Amino acid sequence: MVYRHRGTKVPKSLTWLLKEIRPLDREVMEAARARQDQLTKPRGSLGRLEELSIKIAGIKGEVVPTVRHKAIITLAGDHGVVAEGVSAYPQEVTAQMVYNFLRGWAAINVLARHVGARVVVVDMGVATELKWHPQLISKRIALGTRNIAQGPAMSQEEALQAIEAGIEIVEAEISRGLDIVGTGDMGIGNTTPSSAICAAITGVSVREVTGRGTGLNDARMAHKVEVIERALAVNRPDTKDPLDVLAKVGGFEIGGLVGVMLGAAFHRIPIVIDGFISGAAALIATELSPGLKDYLIASHVSAEVGHWAMLHHMGLEPLLDLELRLGEGTGATLGISLAEASTKILAEMATFAQAGLSEEKE
Amino acid sequence: MVYRHRGTKVPKSLTWLLKEIRPLDREVMEAARARQDQLTKPRGSLGRLEELSIKIAGIKGEVVPTVRHKAIITLAGDHGVVAEGVSAYPQEVTAQMVYNFLRGWAAINVLARHVGARVVVVDMGVATELKWHPQLISKRIALGTRNIAQGPAMSQEEALQAIEAGIEIVEAEISRGLDIVGTGDMGIGNTTPSSAICAAITGVSVREVTGRGTGLNDARMAHKVEVIERALAVNRPDTKDPLDVLAKVGGFEIGGLVGVMLGAAFHRIPIVIDGFISGAAALIATELSPGLKDYLIASHVSAEVGHWAMLHHMGLEPLLDLELRLGEGTGATLGISLAEASTKILAEMATFAQAGLSEEKE
Repeated sequence: MVYRHRGTKVPKSLTWLLKEIRPLDREVMEAARARQDQLTKPRGSLGRLEELSIKIAGIKGEVVPTVRHKAIITLAGDHGVVAEGVSAYPQEVTAQMVYNFLRGWAAINVLARHVGARVVVVDMGVATELKWHPQLISKRIALGTRNIAQGPAMSQEEALQAIEAGIEIVEAEISRGLDIVGTGDMGIGNTTPSSAICAAITGVSVREVTGRGTGLNDARMAHKVEVIERALAVNRPDTKDPLDVLAKVGGFEIGGLVGVMLGAAFHRIPIVIDGFISGAAALIATELSPGLKDYLIASHVSAEVGHWAMLHHMGLEPLLDLELRLGEGTGATLGISLAEASTKILAEMATFAQAGLSEEKE
Repeated sequence: MVYRHRGTKVPKSLTWLLKEIRPLDREVMEAARARQDQLTKPRGSLGRLEELSIKIAGIKGEVVPTVRHKAIITLAGDHGVVAEGVSAYPQEVTAQMVYNFLRGWAAINVLARHVGARVVVVDMGVATELKWHPQLISKRIALGTRNIAQGPAMSQEEALQAIEAGIEIVEAEISRGLDIVGTGDMGIGNTTPSSAICAAITGVSVREVTGRGTGLNDARMAHKVEVIERALAVNRPDTKDPLDVLAKVGGFEIGGLVGVMLGAAFHRIPIVIDGFISGAAALIATELSPGLKDYLIASHVSAEVGHWAMLHHMGLEPLLDLELRLGEGTGATLGISLAEASTKILAEMATFAQAGLSEEKE
């Protein structure tokens, strides 16, 4: 069942994997809906929680699916474009935050503990050499991407390598037990490539999909828009070719997240996507495999402007709107908790018959 | 510290309790905000979770508040107005659902377990005699209210008795350990008095605040609107006197929830309110004590039309919008989980100094 591939044949294998991402199991979904309708509550009264449980049933192919083993996969990478002054924080913060994750001190650790999920921390291409740590997975492609305002972020080969690494990461987690996966990111400057990807794929203007990231003022915001416009003008990504978009204006952690999503969908694992950076990865992944969309659960809509455009393009409705804009997978943890709750409703509630309850009169 | 009162002096004591509901501790809130700004994340990047933690700090008077002991208080009551055919379910379902709660088989049990909250089930006035059960608290005022389409639901004395019972219930839970409380309800027909209360207090028309409850068709919806209009015309509640509104068009579980809210606020316990019926109780409680509003956390906006009008009237912004319309306290459980998560952020995250992290450049 496990798909693994390394070396030169990747593109061919990737094509094969993309074809193997199957539609959801409609028969199982009908059975899950029928069960929801028999539980001791008015029909449909748990609204989106009911729909969520039915979607998860269809993904996993189980009428009463289990969501017990939960993981947030947080991928870190650096971005050459920070040389243009597009972030309020210095680049060394990416590495510092990786150490913070490994100590269990960051927001993602706190929220993942709260919902009972493990955090998987991966170096996809941080700009500084990181000290060895038993919990740190290294899939480093390079010491950060190149500056997209001057040329491509990475080669096509590196883009495929990042996707392949993401598939390997999620498959390793599946072998440890995984019922649902959340996506997360860390990378100073990574709202800039994400906005570029969003503009390239959705066709919405750069200005409308570029936000303040971690906190830019007005002048630096205008500068950031100009940098992204330049990146698109210099690189001219082929908007019909998602791999070209990823290579020219993407990032290593974004490519890794594309792989995590493709690998999870291949193995019929529900994917709870976080905010703006996960959204950029989801845009590329769903362009590669339109059927992947059905495997995605949008945990929240970010305060980062442009996230709505991404979700709208994919036809995804976010579960939460709490004005989060932190990344790391923080929003995904809360979505995972709702997903688990929805499946417990299916599993643990009594039916009208079991409880000896009177049904509707009309 | 514990406030208890029984007997004839209730109105006087209630006046005293209402005066003792104090403003939030602004100094503690400033300190909590300062701590949020020092945690290893961009300022404000956890959005409404940060605001929630600061509100809870101000309620409890602790910079780093603890949310460990959690309870949902689910009050059950019946409504004479069901004789008018305003519900899709027969009245015996109220009692049947109380047994379902006690068996742990209902949605509220599943979701409360998911978030680690206990469920407190109380008979405030179910129309059938309930069998004794070790977990069932009886505060029954009568075997259901009278038909509000013909006269008052209850006497002023009974309305005060219901509020008093609610205060006693929450104080008993405080003595067992309580850091946060969620409100819940069960009562066939109880969207009808809730719409009547909403129209009376907010001034919005009956038609605009009356919904399908657990599932009425168009014809029965029109009839329900007519019944509520008749109830308001027959009873003419004094909209300036919340106790008069409660007595004339309310319910026993609604009165009990008013007491739970007042008692919790008196003891500086955050109150996570559920949907439409909790909203009706909150309208009465905040009319009695405008300062109570600061103690309320609106867990979600219900699919039941009219809930927005309630929240808007109180100036509350719901955390979730999942199209729930079940009641029981189900939405409140999800709000409690977010509240707990927000306080864990304050308690468990590292500061920039602790983590040796670089701060913002600008």
